[in-house]
Order: sequence, then structure tokens, then C-alpha cells
Amino acid sequence: MKSVFIVRGKYLITMNKKDEIIENGAVVVEDGKIKDIGEFTEILKKYKDSSIPVYGNSHSALMPGFINTHTHAAMVLFRGIADDLPLKQWLIEHIWPREAKFLSPEFVYDGTCLASLEILKSGTTTFNDMYFFTESIAEAAKKLGIRAIIGQGVLDFPTASGKGADDYLKKASEFIEKYKDDELIVPAVAPHAIYTCSKETLLKSKELALKTSVPIHIHLSETFQEVEECIKKHGKRPIKYLRDIGFLEGRITAAHSVWVNDEEIELMAEHGVGVSHCIESNLKLSSGIAPVARMIKKGVKVSMGTDGAASNNNLDLLEEISIAAKVQKGVTADPTVLNVKTCMKMLTIWAAESLGLENQIGSIEIGKRADMILMNLRKAHLQPVYDIYSTIIYSAKASDIEDVFVNGVPVVLNGRHQFVDEDEIIEKALWWAEKIQNS
Amino acid sequence: MKSVFIVRGKYLITMNKKDEIIENGAVVVEDGKIKDIGEFTEILKKYKDSSIPVYGNSHSALMPGFINTHTHAAMVLFRGIADDLPLKQWLIEHIWPREAKFLSPEFVYDGTCLASLEILKSGTTTFNDMYFFTESIAEAAKKLGIRAIIGQGVLDFPTASGKGADDYLKKASEFIEKYKDDELIVPAVAPHAIYTCSKETLLKSKELALKTSVPIHIHLSETFQEVEECIKKHGKRPIKYLRDIGFLEGRITAAHSVWVNDEEIELMAEHGVGVSHCIESNLKLSSGIAPVARMIKKGVKVSMGTDGAASNNNLDLLEEISIAAKVQKGVTADPTVLNVKTCMKMLTIWAAESLGLENQIGSIEIGKRADMILMNLRKAHLQPVYDIYSTIIYSAKASDIEDVFVNGVPVVLNGRHQFVDEDEIIEKALWWAEKIQNS
Ligand SMILES: [Zn+2]
Ligand SMILES: [Zn+2]
Repeated sequence: MKSVFIVRGKYLITMNKKDEIIENGAVVVEDGKIKDIGEFTEILKKYKDSSIPVYGNSHSALMPGFINTHTHAAMVLFRGIADDLPLKQWLIEHIWPREAKFLSPEFVYDGTCLASLEILKSGTTTFNDMYFFTESIAEAAKKLGIRAIIGQGVLDFPTASGKGADDYLKKASEFIEKYKDDELIVPAVAPHAIYTCSKETLLKSKELALKTSVPIHIHLSETFQEVEECIKKHGKRPIKYLRDIGFLEGRITAAHSVWVNDEEIELMAEHGVGVSHCIESNLKLSSGIAPVARMIKKGVKVSMGTDGAASNNNLDLLEEISIAAKVQKGVTADPTVLNVKTCMKMLTIWAAESLGLENQIGSIEIGKRADMILMNLRKAHLQPVYDIYSTIIYSAKASDIEDVFVNGVPVVLNGRHQFVDEDEIIEKALWWAEKIQNS
Repeated sequence: MKSVFIVRGKYLITMNKKDEIIENGAVVVEDGKIKDIGEFTEILKKYKDSSIPVYGNSHSALMPGFINTHTHAAMVLFRGIADDLPLKQWLIEHIWPREAKFLSPEFVYDGTCLASLEILKSGTTTFNDMYFFTESIAEAAKKLGIRAIIGQGVLDFPTASGKGADDYLKKASEFIEKYKDDELIVPAVAPHAIYTCSKETLLKSKELALKTSVPIHIHLSETFQEVEECIKKHGKRPIKYLRDIGFLEGRITAAHSVWVNDEEIELMAEHGVGVSHCIESNLKLSSGIAPVARMIKKGVKVSMGTDGAASNNNLDLLEEISIAAKVQKGVTADPTVLNVKTCMKMLTIWAAESLGLENQIGSIEIGKRADMILMNLRKAHLQPVYDIYSTIIYSAKASDIEDVFVNGVPVVLNGRHQFVDEDEIIEKALWWAEKIQNS
């Protein structure tokens, strides 16, 4: 038997190439995919079967699920453990010692469950993760019913999860093999950064990704110091270095990209490198402010990432985009940049393109996977609605997302996850927090 | 009969001078005031009467209600009507023509009702408003059960609400007389700005405020252009000009204060001028970024304002402070500024001090008015809690505030207003929106 349902909204925001918004629109979902789109009354006439469930109502906004292009989901267990500190002190005194002590398949599984719950409930249906124990990340994501691009972290040094570059690459290769045909999980390769991966490690990572057709995920030019070190060591700035060694091939998502000059921005555009803009993490750690308005002007696909919740301290893309939009206006002195339509693209279709998943997700179009969210507009802080994009970007909160569909499955309805015990996940987090705090 | 109840929380965040947080604490409220504070078990023993209602539970955080020090509440009816535009174009083409057309007691009443609902539900128990038709603002605030400082706008030119400076001042005087002993409403005088008020108007406003012991509310140095014009016209920068004409007396809250130099910051500190930092409005309109970390260092009382929802586009102080904290770290390159404890003070006790209300609100202390809020911590995006201040400032959302008490009255419980019809208020807003849109 086929699984069929209808989702309707006062605004059906497609994010298709024509930026169509269908007023009083509806989507027909069949077996995980979008089968039909149209006006609700027309759809009802066409699909007369009254046993087909209908989600949404005349005061909801229906849109593609958001896509978070840079996370370390499991680190949510360190949320708020150390704030208001410089990046180095934060990493060396607080994060790394705790990672060294607690990083394990169980930690990653429980952390990713908690993170996935937060991510889903804030309207994000796909996250692009870079971390270790990828099997645990995948199990957690599948348990929660969320789509995840999972990149095995690759480093030149050992951690609790691997012995060194070749070991991480072997794990990556095995993980890709196991999950390459999965409907929810997209395996990826995630060389951590230029300063933690040698040229050989970077190139081996890239070759594995190209050979297996999976995305690449890397940290790039997050801090000024990192760029200075790269110039000292390699005689050139990071992106030029990557281009010159032949790394810039395939589908690359570069997290941060704060310290990039115009020449580098052009290189990124030319090589189709997507940027995951993590403004909250960058501000909070005083790393700087990426010139994303300029990147967008030059044709770079910019999307949004929350980074790990240890440095943010949440995984909420609506908060992230609202800050990004305002900060770019503030620092460029141009209030027209990152307008509300651009912001919506950054949360959806541009993110999908950056990850190479634009044929499956990122917009509401026939044939795509049904990753969609419903926002309840009947709230004091969302009214009036003059421009629905504006309402979403500047006024709405994560909590206004009440229903979430991933791959055609109603995963969250009325703000509650439909098939996991939320309390159990929170209890598990409390258990870890006690262990971590007393360590 | 006396009205008595108890409110408890896993964390009772007092914001008193010792920054005390009582774990598993409780507050006894009697006739609108805080009568007792202590550990919940002790309080229970002391007040044995089982008929006393108890709000809150073992997974909530109890704290003083937030104080929004700069709003134009009724403008919420223009929320999202024009975004991503330069300040002048936004004002001249979109806001002023509509204000000219719609500004009326009914508009202000309905707009302030909608705004008050949003404000209350996001944990703010007091707002400092500057607008016109102050009687309507007061009626709306009292209907919603929220505390409001209401400043009659004073300008040198006529609007739909007054004929000119003397007329506005007369209205201010009458409003002060009528509300001076109200338990919820604090009347104030609000000379709009240096560029809209002559020296005489500014001084008459100040004299009225001093004579009647009410706060002063003014826009100050919001844009660079405004400062340039002041220098051209008066031969000095705005704050120096105000000091030299003798305006800097009494309890002044200066909204924005974006373009102030060190000398001006010192003048503000010296004269006890409080600053309402409206970072979202300032960024969104590309006005600039106020040097609030420096102001705080020099002893200026800095609090947070959302400005009107037409330029923000919400009235949510938790969003405002979270952005403020991160942006200051980003632009000063110092991640230790605006730490989570400072941020909590900006939302509560410093705001009360700026308004001259520190003996009544801004902290949970015996004898103060019971303006308090409860946050539900048992949510995926708030766990784990290592530092409750961090959870509130960096992770929590408006929607996590579930119960709100103002002046000892449970106004919002479980996220619902207890004595107004929320739907009716939203319907009224929709009615206005249709009129405004079709105009
Ligand atoms: Zn990262
Ligand atoms: Zn204002």
C-alpha cells in the first residue's frame, strides 16, 4: 500500500526557480516524494479520497525544511559549559580535554539524538555533520528520522576515534560503502582543516570523495591567525593553496570562510565551493565576520551553519539567519544586502546546491523528496503578515515550526516528535552532563 | 482577603546585589509584592497553608521579568511592511505616510494590545514606550496587565495627535497628572530627538519631568548623519550639546546612542544617563553598532530596547540580548565582553535603574513588586544546563517563557494570557493590516 498524504498552507513557499508562492496551496506526498503541487481546492478535487490525511491549515506557512550546512551535532552535550572565552582558551582548556575524556560511540549517539531533536523541532530537516564515530551519528539520525550528511573527520593525529589520517580515511571509506544507498544518510569526507591535515591527507580525502561521488566538508579560514599560519607555511593564502594543490574539485562545503579576500572569493565561485556561514559562532568566539554579501554578489553559494552547540549555543537556523541578515547590513552599511528572499534561499535551495543534493531537497517541486515544514502564523509575534518571507526571517522563532516532514514521514506534529521518547533523550543528556561536570 | 501565592524554580535567579541564585528556591507573593524568598522546602514549612497556590516546578528557572527600555509598541501593526531599505527611504516612503494616515487612538490601542501580548509572552514585564495617544497606550497596557512607562512624544511639528511642542507638553502634563499614582503605568516625557526638538522644547520637557518626578525618554545619536547635523547646527556633538544646554538632569533613558565618542560616554556616565541599546534595529537599518562594551566599562547603565517592531521585526528581548552579546564580541574582538551575567543585568536591574524604578522592579527581592517569569528548562534545545545564565542568554527562546507574573498577578500561564482573548487581538490586527495594505 502506498503512503499518501496532503499538506496545505495559507502560503506554499516553493523556493523553486521562479520563487513561486502559492496562496492557499497544497502538496501531495506519495512514498516519500512530492507527487503534486497546486491550489488546495484543486488538489482536493483531484484527490477525492477522503481517507487521505491532510496536515496544515489556513493559517500556516508551508516551506521546504531548512538545511544546516555545518554542525558537530554530538557536541551539544557541551552546550554552555564554557562561554565568553577566547577561541584558543575555550578549545584547549575546556573542549579538547573533555572530548579526549568522553568521545565514544555512546557519547556521539546520545549527543546526536539530543541534537537531532532540537534540529528537527526548529524546522531543519537536513544537517551536514563533521565528527567522529560516524556509525553512531547515522544510527541516531535514522532513529530520529532526520536527513544527515555525515562526514568522517580526517586529521593527521590520533584521537579516541582513530589512529591517524589513513585510519580515518579507511573509516570514511567503509562508512561510504555502507551508507551510499541510504535514503536518509549521505556519507561524506571531512578533512578537518588546512592546519590539521597535510597536503597528502587533503588530497587523499578529495580523491576518496571524487571516486565515491560524495560531498566534501572542511573548515576554512575561520580565524585570522589560521590564514597567517597558512601564509607562513605554504607561502599563500588558504584558498589559493587549496586551488594550487588541486583540492578544489567535487562538491565542497567550506565552513566559516571568514578571512577571505576578493581573489579567494572569485576562486570559490569559479570552483563551485559552497560556504557555510556560521555567524553566531564567529561572533561569539570573536573570529570575525565573513563577507557573505560580497560572496553572494560574486556567485558563491552561501548557506547557513550553526557549528556545534558548544560554541553557539543552539542549533537554530532561524536565529542564525536573522542575525546574519542584520549583521551584514550593519557592517556593510547597506541595508539592502541579504534581503529576505536571499535569506530564504540560503536556508534551503542554496544549501542543497552546496551539498550537491539540489535534485532531492531544498525546494518544494514535483519529484523531490518531501522534506517540508509547517509554521503556525496565528501568533501575536507573527502578525500582521505583509510579506511572508519577512515574517519567517525577521519575526518567526524555532518554536513556530509545529510540523516537520522528512522524506515523506510526519516526524514532528504539533511540536512533538512522533516516534521517539523526548524525555528519555533529555534524561540521557542529563546523565552525561553530570558525568562531564564532575570530571 | 489577601492574594497570596508561591512561585518556585530549580533556579531562583534573584539579580540582587550579590547575584544570588537559590537552587530549588521559591518566592512568596502577597498583594502584588514579594513577601519572602528562600529554599522551597523551607518556604513550604513556613507557609503551611495548603490552599496557597504554587506555580513552577523542579525544572523551571524563576527570574525577574525583563524590561524593554525602548519601544513604540503600536507600530507593531507595521511589522514587516517594508524591509531591507535605507532608514530614510523606509521612513519617508513607507512609515511616515502610513502613520499620517492611520495614527489614531484606535490604532494605538489595538496596536499596543497586540504588542503587549507579544511582549508579555516573551518574558518582558515592563516596557518603556514613546509614542502618541498615551491614554490609549495606558488603557491597552492595563487591559493586558503589563507594566509600562509611557512617554508622550514631544515634537516641534504637528501630527495627527497634536498641534506642536506646547500641545504635546500639555498632553504630557495631563497624562502625568492622571497616572502619577497608578500601580502599573509610569508616565514619562519623551522629547523625540535633538533634530526634532528645539532647545526650548528640550528644556521644557526636562523641566516638566523634573517638576513631576517622571523619567525622560529620548532618541540620541542613532545615525552618523544625525551627529553631523548637530555639529553643523550647534557646533558640538549631541551629548555635549545636551549637557551644555542643561538637559542632562533627572532619569534619562537615551535610545540607540550609536555614534558616541569617549568624551560623550564619560558625560553620560557622569550624568547618570542610561542607554537603551537597540542592536537589531541599528543593524537592520545599517545605523551602526553602539560601543556598549566601552560604555559599560565606563559605568554607563546599558539596557536593551527592541525599538518598534516595524524596524526589528519583533519585540523579543531574549533575541535582542543574544545578538547584542555576540555582536559586541565580534566587533571588539574580545569574547569576554558582555558576558552572560552582564547580559542578565542589562535585561533586568540595570534597566530598572535607568528608568528610576530600581526600588520597585528589576530583581527578586523582598518588598519589590512581583514581576517575575518562569522558563521551562525541560526542552531539547536547553539541555544540558551547566550555567543557567548561559542557558538563558545563549540558548533560550521567547517561547520557553511559559508563566509571567506582573505586579503579583499571574498574567500568562502555560503560554496563554489569562484574561484577554488572544484571538480577538490577532483578529483586530488582521483587520488593520488589510486596511493598511489596501491604502
Ligand atoms: Zn566547526
Ligand atoms: Zn525609536
